Amino acid sequence: MEKEWDIIEVLRHSRHDWLNKLQLIKGNMDLNRIERVKEIVEEIIIEAQQESKLSNIKLPLFASLLLTANWESHQFQLEYEVLGEGGLPALNEDLLTYWTKSFFACLDTSVEPFQENHLSVGIEKQDEGARFFFDFRGIIKQVKLIEQFLADSNNQEMEIVVEEFSENEFALEIFMPVV
Amino acid sequence: MEKEWDIIEVLRHSRHDWLNKLQLIKGNMDLNRIERVKEIVEEIIIEAQQESKLSNIKLPLFASLLLTANWESHQFQLEYEVLGEGGLPALNEDLLTYWTKSFFACLDTSVEPFQENHLSVGIEKQDEGARFFFDFRGIIKQVKLIEQFLADSNNQEMEIVVEEFSENEFALEIFMPVV
Repeated sequence: MEKEWDIIEVLRHSRHDWLNKLQLIKGNMDLNRIERVKEIVEEIIIEAQQESKLSNIKLPLFASLLLTANWESHQFQLEYEVLGEGGLPALNEDLLTYWTKSFFACLDTSVEPFQENHLSVGIEKQDEGARFFFDFRGIIKQVKLIEQFLADSNNQEMEIVVEEFSENEFALEIFMPVV
Repeated sequence: MEKEWDIIEVLRHSRHDWLNKLQLIKGNMDLNRIERVKEIVEEIIIEAQQESKLSNIKLPLFASLLLTANWESHQFQLEYEVLGEGGLPALNEDLLTYWTKSFFACLDTSVEPFQENHLSVGIEKQDEGARFFFDFRGIIKQVKLIEQFLADSNNQEMEIVVEEFSENEFALEIFMPVV
């Protein structure tokens, strides 16, 4: 988990991701699907805008964790969305990052491996802090493990509300106050 | 010069470069220049292959310096090409990287700023070491400064041969032996 990313490795992964996108463009060009290529280009731009917004929320440790998550061998695919504009207020970023790392590790052991497991993280600025949404779709083998993890990690600095929980999906809302 | 790159910054610059390429694709798509788009896609793939080869020469400090050079405010644009395949043998990478950094700084003060200054670096594996080619095209204001720098840095661990030198271009060949 505690991987030190260096420039060469970050660029290697990033290049790999971009070449996959380029491959999509190339493949559709070869099939003369011009309209599809235009759509793909638009999708890539929107994705890059999200990446840019995530880089600007002023939580560098947390942002780096999300930006590199799909390059680590997790049992789920991560997506993220930053709602609204601008940086977040000052939060306990160390706690948030540590919790998220631990939660990823908990998910890795709790979900059915090699399945279509998706975790979507939403980030929303609030007047008195920030709200984080963790939505999962996939197959959970060990529901109790996740429930226990969530029960253990709820505290004043991090208010976790479980909105939904089943073997195929869950939705959490986490509120972190300004420090 | 001695900039510490973090993940977010590396990705920011890399994303910016890739979005520029995507913009070229998009612009030509909009003008319905389908053949040109195909050419651009091929060019991008070749460029990415060079980046990948540079990442694999097993000189991480030197490779990182070249990979990030165009993101620093140099008075020249850098290109590089790795000739042949495979990693280089063990060289004095610290010396090579330090020398190259110093050479970039020397160029920054010696060339006419805001002009079309291009530095091309070639890297070639040899039986007993490696050869590095530094080719410059542009406008040099202070020829003597560069000459002095090169005279001072020639030594046994780094054999520098000046192949050509004028106010508009120069060509150096550097041989570094296996350590």
